[in-house]
Amino acid sequence: MLDKMVSRELKILALETINNAGSGHSGSVLSCGDILYTLYTRHLLSNGTKSMNRDRFVLSNGHACAGLYSILAGLQYFDIEELKLFRKYNGRLTGHPEIDVPGIDAATGPLGQGVANAVGMAIAESIMSQRFNLNHHTYCMVGDGCLQEGVAMEALSIAGLYKLNKFILLYDKNDVTLDGKLSDSSSDNMVRKFIAMNFNVIECNGHNIRMIDEAIARAKQSKDKPSVIIFHTIIGKDTDIAGSNKSHGKVYSAQEIDKLRKYYKINSPVMGLSEQAKERLLSLRAKITQKFEERVQNFNNFIKNDEKIEKLYLKFINNDFKFKIRSNKKDMSTREANNIVLNDIAKTQENLLVLSADLSSSTKVKINDSNNYSAKNRLGKNIAVGIREHAMGAIANGIALHGGFVVTCSTFLTFSNYMMPAIRMAGIMNLPVLFAFSHSSVYETPDGVTHIPVEQLDQLRIIPNMTVVRPCCLNECAAAYETFFKRKRPMCLSLSRGDLPGYPIYENMDKGAYLMTNNKAEINIMASGSEVSIAMQVKDILKGKLIANVISVPSLEIFDEQTKAYKNKILNKPIFVIESSTCVKYLKYTTEDKIFNVCDFGVSGDEINLKKHFGYDANIIAEKILKIIKK
Amino acid sequence: MLDKMVSRELKILALETINNAGSGHSGSVLSCGDILYTLYTRHLLSNGTKSMNRDRFVLSNGHACAGLYSILAGLQYFDIEELKLFRKYNGRLTGHPEIDVPGIDAATGPLGQGVANAVGMAIAESIMSQRFNLNHHTYCMVGDGCLQEGVAMEALSIAGLYKLNKFILLYDKNDVTLDGKLSDSSSDNMVRKFIAMNFNVIECNGHNIRMIDEAIARAKQSKDKPSVIIFHTIIGKDTDIAGSNKSHGKVYSAQEIDKLRKYYKINSPVMGLSEQAKERLLSLRAKITQKFEERVQNFNNFIKNDEKIEKLYLKFINNDFKFKIRSNKKDMSTREANNIVLNDIAKTQENLLVLSADLSSSTKVKINDSNNYSAKNRLGKNIAVGIREHAMGAIANGIALHGGFVVTCSTFLTFSNYMMPAIRMAGIMNLPVLFAFSHSSVYETPDGVTHIPVEQLDQLRIIPNMTVVRPCCLNECAAAYETFFKRKRPMCLSLSRGDLPGYPIYENMDKGAYLMTNNKAEINIMASGSEVSIAMQVKDILKGKLIANVISVPSLEIFDEQTKAYKNKILNKPIFVIESSTCVKYLKYTTEDKIFNVCDFGVSGDEINLKKHFGYDANIIAEKILKIIKK
Repeated sequence: MLDKMVSRELKILALETINNAGSGHSGSVLSCGDILYTLYTRHLLSNGTKSMNRDRFVLSNGHACAGLYSILAGLQYFDIEELKLFRKYNGRLTGHPEIDVPGIDAATGPLGQGVANAVGMAIAESIMSQRFNLNHHTYCMVGDGCLQEGVAMEALSIAGLYKLNKFILLYDKNDVTLDGKLSDSSSDNMVRKFIAMNFNVIECNGHNIRMIDEAIARAKQSKDKPSVIIFHTIIGKDTDIAGSNKSHGKVYSAQEIDKLRKYYKINSPVMGLSEQAKERLLSLRAKITQKFEERVQNFNNFIKNDEKIEKLYLKFINNDFKFKIRSNKKDMSTREANNIVLNDIAKTQENLLVLSADLSSSTKVKINDSNNYSAKNRLGKNIAVGIREHAMGAIANGIALHGGFVVTCSTFLTFSNYMMPAIRMAGIMNLPVLFAFSHSSVYETPDGVTHIPVEQLDQLRIIPNMTVVRPCCLNECAAAYETFFKRKRPMCLSLSRGDLPGYPIYENMDKGAYLMTNNKAEINIMASGSEVSIAMQVKDILKGKLIANVISVPSLEIFDEQTKAYKNKILNKPIFVIESSTCVKYLKYTTEDKIFNVCDFGVSGDEINLKKHFGYDANIIAEKILKIIKK
Repeated sequence: MLDKMVSRELKILALETINNAGSGHSGSVLSCGDILYTLYTRHLLSNGTKSMNRDRFVLSNGHACAGLYSILAGLQYFDIEELKLFRKYNGRLTGHPEIDVPGIDAATGPLGQGVANAVGMAIAESIMSQRFNLNHHTYCMVGDGCLQEGVAMEALSIAGLYKLNKFILLYDKNDVTLDGKLSDSSSDNMVRKFIAMNFNVIECNGHNIRMIDEAIARAKQSKDKPSVIIFHTIIGKDTDIAGSNKSHGKVYSAQEIDKLRKYYKINSPVMGLSEQAKERLLSLRAKITQKFEERVQNFNNFIKNDEKIEKLYLKFINNDFKFKIRSNKKDMSTREANNIVLNDIAKTQENLLVLSADLSSSTKVKINDSNNYSAKNRLGKNIAVGIREHAMGAIANGIALHGGFVVTCSTFLTFSNYMMPAIRMAGIMNLPVLFAFSHSSVYETPDGVTHIPVEQLDQLRIIPNMTVVRPCCLNECAAAYETFFKRKRPMCLSLSRGDLPGYPIYENMDKGAYLMTNNKAEINIMASGSEVSIAMQVKDILKGKLIANVISVPSLEIFDEQTKAYKNKILNKPIFVIESSTCVKYLKYTTEDKIFNVCDFGVSGDEINLKKHFGYDANIIAEKILKIIKK
């Protein structure tokens, strides 16, 4: 009964937090409040830091965050006063959760993403559990909306496939969405659907703390299946608009909140908690802390018991490994080059994980001498996720959030579109995830328009915090990995399908753009990836008529960060650009007429014809350049 | 037995077509060939034209197209000689199907899309069936890969919800994907999963024409559920690598094909068919044609029997409706303006369909006086798809492919990322779909980083064939719809959440960019959407110090199409740009220092603070402009 009262106080606190902000989502605070309360006071072992041993929790229905914030404040993860800054400019308690807040393990908001993040965390745990005896659960709260999203459905299938028994989905089933009743937009039998995906399914009243407690305890016992607890709840519970979608984005007035306070028979101060509640929360937190510290102690004992294990663990945590950039003259595609670099790194770096959406045979993004990760083989480094690009990206984010791994995932460049929301979330959280995309030029495949990337490279480049690297050879590929390890930020790699000439190691290779030739030139040609070799041909064709330098541009974003002096050194001549993309970002450096880009969809055909069709034929380009210069 | 032989000849023909192309996907040709054969020779009523009465067929596993092409050629939808141009430059028979080929109802390739397209077609049929007694089935072939994709899972839930009983999914379950066994990446119980989504589930041997025939006949009888026929098949059947993923992208050699020909005991010529097969196919086609013509006749009789119905039907088909652009001085958001225009159009245009991913209360993209579409009310014009943005986009594409409707769908601009692959497909097929996105400026919501669009506007603008329109007022909104109806091509609409001043009707409003003021100015300020009113403020603040004109830019793509003379008239002064986007496409018109764009992720806060944070405060901008001009 005491807990019921405390949970009610916290719900009132959340409603007042929303009222104070002037906007927010009260409905789900009232539907999932008791579940969050029970989880945080009885099960979720954490100390609010980023400790590797903590249980993870992802609020995939991020809009319910006011409820979570109030509990975190009540448990003194941060000062209760901070709730007054909810949704305010410069406050940490943003409208949807972000990871700089103690107790928040993933930024959420776009529905479904959090589910896949949590699956990624559970995969990470399963591996570290096998290697280092790490032992924690990953909880994820979802609403009805999250489970309509394809990315969630993809991720849950993967959780079932890999028997992630420490993954526990807390499903706040209030049967209402923003626009109306859930039955207006869904008739799925969710119990059956979860069973079909190999879940341990538990149903429970989501407003009874004792029952919630028992359900979570049962879920924790699952041995070879992930669990879902379907909590039957009421949106906007105990208010006049209980059970209605009107409560979804409702800001309850002080009067309405007061009415609820009276109905609950509680006397907490406005935007505060009663002394009794504070005391109860403190004592519950103390218990959690004690259990958590025991877990950490056990873990430390295990690790420190074996020097080899300790050394390996520190390597996992610190990622302090090396690899060598090697010069190469052999013709090869950059997807092959990437495979070489990746496998070179994998030799010393055992925490490399490679996710593939069923195209690893073609992207060549895989660890050659490792088996697949599976329920039976947690140490496999290649993780098959099926043709589920979106979940792949969000799972990679989850693995990065968990920590302890270097994670990369791959598909064709054109299919980066399928994972765009996940790539954006990597940008938002600034996660060190490497997204590798092959088949990156318009003339590289006879597969036709749907398989030919046009706008993708630039769509990725304009995502804030994203670095896109488009290497032209093995050395640039290796340099990309050096940059990735240095920056520890999200990166997209654009790889060629076709063979390209090898180039030596150049000075300034790490500066995003650099001179490959250093003539007293009349023009400079910027190019990246496969088009660098075209630019080199153009330069040779022009010889005698016009002296050209070639600038390889592995990354516009990195080039952007260089000094003005360095940039001017390169940009002090008429600039031409050859790149298989829309090239919008190059408009900074030159005019449209000097850019050989692509703005139309691709067509089927062979490389020679496609190069002519799109104007990537060196002779055609050389001729055009001469015409423009003569003008 | 004769059909078995003919089907085998067609499979051989497909393998030879792939061999001739030098690339392609033979494995699935051999696994789904008999299913396609049975469907096309016994069930699919069509004459290869775009007739409204034809059964629709979508090959969602588009890579299996060589098998489909060979059947279409055999049935003389096009000349068999054309198979020699498969995957060749300038050929119609591209690596994945495109809609300019007779018999192809949707371009496919990116897995999962086709499923949602087909669901869209079935929704369209259900409405036209109610209104006009239209009566056809929509078939969709999928492989295991399609059913891993989230977009397919989303769409199938919707098919179950809306009891689309004329939707028949033909599932070529060969249990193999490109990278390996299906069991490596999926452990879902598909029968249970389909039952959970309210499907009529039929299982069948996918290599027995009689059984396939019966299974399809049974599916056609379903009264209140969509059907899935799970065909158990063998990839690469009857070859040395049958059942292996090695057959997926395999090009069988002439020798291997010959071996199979001998094993099949058939004597068809290379890249051809035996006389017996040709004859059989002709007679089967004749039967199909007869049934199809009967159906058309029945439909025409029904339509012509009632003058009112005929008139309405012609209106549906021709989309020749009118609405009035009305001047407006009242402050309103463009999401409200869009609602007004949309509902104005809806008064005379009964074939308007509005899909919403559960945000219609907020985007205001809805027909105010219409109920929701449902299994019980096929005439509802608002179609709830749940929080399934990706399927929404692909279903909208399917409705547009079906014909007879004007279709629009909506969510927040930032979530356009979720539907990017569908938007791209609309671009590829040049479909008249209106994608409406609200909450389009960085300072419009306290919801935080995940809900604030930054890169989305430009990500959409660089998709080939896409027109992005960002109206600043009611009149520009109305003009956008005029443009949409004229162009009959895909369009994205970017709408404001907050109130904006009303502006009168201007000359050249349809030219993508036009002068809103016409002073003898020293500078011109380009702006769009919500930022037009900021530009107007800036102009006023500058008065006395610097004379500025304001150019409203509802669409860069439309402006791009104007004459040089018109463009020069606008661009003949120093150009400044104010727009809540990365503004990369504006780099064509001016230099970076004169652009007030946004390149970082958003933060939570109120409008005033956010405007200051991102530099969209009129005073700050005016000051900066003066500084730049003085330099």
